[in-house]
Amino acid sequence: MALIVQKYGGTSVGNTERIKNVARRVADYHRRGDQLVVVVSAMSGVTDGLIKLAKEITPLPNERELDMLLATGEQQTIALTAMALHALGIPAVSLTGAQAGIVTDGIHTKARIRNITPKAVHELLQSGAVVIVAGFQGETPDGQITTLGRGGSDLTAIALAAALKADLCQIYTDVDGVYTADPRIVPTARKLDEISYDEMLELASLGAKVMQSRSVEFAKKFGVVFEVRSSLNDNPGTIVKEETKSMEGIVVRGVSLDKNQAKITLVGVPDRPGMAAKIFKALGDAAINVDMIVQNISHGDGPPTTDLSFTVDKADLLKARKVIEALQPDVGFRQVLANENIGKLSIVGVGMKSHTGVAGRMFEVLAREGINIDMISTSEIKISVIIDLARAEHAMRAVHAAFIG
Amino acid sequence: MALIVQKYGGTSVGNTERIKNVARRVADYHRRGDQLVVVVSAMSGVTDGLIKLAKEITPLPNERELDMLLATGEQQTIALTAMALHALGIPAVSLTGAQAGIVTDGIHTKARIRNITPKAVHELLQSGAVVIVAGFQGETPDGQITTLGRGGSDLTAIALAAALKADLCQIYTDVDGVYTADPRIVPTARKLDEISYDEMLELASLGAKVMQSRSVEFAKKFGVVFEVRSSLNDNPGTIVKEETKSMEGIVVRGVSLDKNQAKITLVGVPDRPGMAAKIFKALGDAAINVDMIVQNISHGDGPPTTDLSFTVDKADLLKARKVIEALQPDVGFRQVLANENIGKLSIVGVGMKSHTGVAGRMFEVLAREGINIDMISTSEIKISVIIDLARAEHAMRAVHAAFIG
Repeated sequence: MALIVQKYGGTSVGNTERIKNVARRVADYHRRGDQLVVVVSAMSGVTDGLIKLAKEITPLPNERELDMLLATGEQQTIALTAMALHALGIPAVSLTGAQAGIVTDGIHTKARIRNITPKAVHELLQSGAVVIVAGFQGETPDGQITTLGRGGSDLTAIALAAALKADLCQIYTDVDGVYTADPRIVPTARKLDEISYDEMLELASLGAKVMQSRSVEFAKKFGVVFEVRSSLNDNPGTIVKEETKSMEGIVVRGVSLDKNQAKITLVGVPDRPGMAAKIFKALGDAAINVDMIVQNISHGDGPPTTDLSFTVDKADLLKARKVIEALQPDVGFRQVLANENIGKLSIVGVGMKSHTGVAGRMFEVLAREGINIDMISTSEIKISVIIDLARAEHAMRAVHAAFIG
Repeated sequence: MALIVQKYGGTSVGNTERIKNVARRVADYHRRGDQLVVVVSAMSGVTDGLIKLAKEITPLPNERELDMLLATGEQQTIALTAMALHALGIPAVSLTGAQAGIVTDGIHTKARIRNITPKAVHELLQSGAVVIVAGFQGETPDGQITTLGRGGSDLTAIALAAALKADLCQIYTDVDGVYTADPRIVPTARKLDEISYDEMLELASLGAKVMQSRSVEFAKKFGVVFEVRSSLNDNPGTIVKEETKSMEGIVVRGVSLDKNQAKITLVGVPDRPGMAAKIFKALGDAAINVDMIVQNISHGDGPPTTDLSFTVDKADLLKARKVIEALQPDVGFRQVLANENIGKLSIVGVGMKSHTGVAGRMFEVLAREGINIDMISTSEIKISVIIDLARAEHAMRAVHAAFIG
């Protein structure tokens, strides 16, 4: 008998038939004697429908009221899921985030969980019931309804698993687990049996859409081992956990490609102290997230200048250009170039810490394929390069073949 | 400056355009300096849609979970209404029933309000905000979400008006107020300026669909004067209040027709003590509501028998027949007759208390029109007759013409 926290996303509970499927799976676990806490998202489409209504009312809805509105999506799913379990003869009780004791700060639409007091959950488990908890939502200490932002239901599940000291935390989704690469691009990609938190974090931040970084960080911080698996079959998924000795034997765990970046280059920036600080402070003030930064000294006749390149989200490109152009009189660069046709190709693996020459091997593979490298960025367990978008998928397959197979 | 509680039903908030209209009306009151508490229902269709989802899951959903599900309908409307007020520059905060301090018993799907602790409402009003409260819902002392059953949003408004000692309580609906008769049947029917609680109660229980009895009873008990008016125009509505001397000058306030009754007659019931008790206890045990009862002694050759007639809701007719037929061996009546083709025509007015001969005048009108009276029932302020359904609307117009004009 184990205490299991399961989380089902919007697609897994997308209509009443799917909710019944979820209930059947939960019932199977319950019948073999496990205690179950089931976290569910809003039915797919419901949250978007509510946002559409809000936008019909006003283009910029108040965030407290948006939380009041959006929290109803998950509340509907918990009630329907509990009913579906009753129909199978399984005792089940639904709880809103607030009722489940999920206390957050007051930052509406992206609240952070402060603590969890799972008294009601414990009591209901004790009574033999399956407890269905609304994901994505909580309550401030003074009783305001909050939501946790994107990926919030994963966070609810992992935080509950931590608070309840659950034996198992399962994140059910519409993919079989975490893959060595996106199988739609790399046909030879395969599902991983396990991956470390840090690798998962790098992959998440590199555009692999399985989970938001925040939930993985939370799991790492509280040592919650969780499994990403499919709600459409019974295949085992991918276990995400602290890195082990055996994991270091594998140099590259996964390859990811982010097509969503754009590059800005400032040509001829006067090489004086404080120039870079000015530029990136201005971008930060405009809430523009800068990813990679590269700077090269130019050797010319006049006073020393540098070329400065960095990448931002494609969606922020226009805004970033405006911020930069406004700085021209102050910073005094010669020209701004922008390039949307780039891809960021990354390899990730904790094994890199104990293996040398990995970067060299990657560059060699790319060179062999005639692919030019625009920018390079590395961390302890990751190497990323910016390359031409047109060749990026080909490059990804080549790198995957070289390191993984 | 007044403290006003307004309630808007599902049709008045049926889509985002209508919610904006509601917000404009509320904003007008707020701008002239009134303090406003606005109670809203679920958008029309939302509750039915949720019930449909629940029925797709299971034919008999658990009532606690049904409350969890249905309460989301009003929660969506409060958020959208608050946003619509913000868009007009009016400060507004939405509160769920629980947040507004509406405490109920634990009878899910038809909970009763136990008490209201409107601390949050007071504080928000004090701060200058319009307070938007979810109708139809509350919370038990231990934090379970409940709903109040049919007409629950009216009840929320009237109970809040009582708890807040509001100066005015306005029930906005899609009709202009309370009419002397249904204008679709009686073209000369006119809107009443005022009506007493007791008259309103009789009309409510007689099939006039403006409001549920429960809300009127609550208003009477706590002396809440309220106005029924239209959300589609600015016409004054009908004031509902304790009866005054001047009201007694009018003998008949309104005429109503209930086409939803059916008559059952037991022929040849042995005239022994306890027979009626057996019959109506059995119907009560089956949760069948009996309205009118008439008993006549038969004078025949054998032992004395009676004929017993009563009316029930048409929806209960089949069930009632089964209950009665099961009693045959025990009670020993000769025959059961059922008639669905009846109408219950009623006249209501507190003036009847001080005027004599009203019943006689009504029967005279019906006789003149050649309409046979099947059953008669009277109270202090009401006379009801059961007549042939085919002539019922004609009879209604004749009685309205005779008493009201």
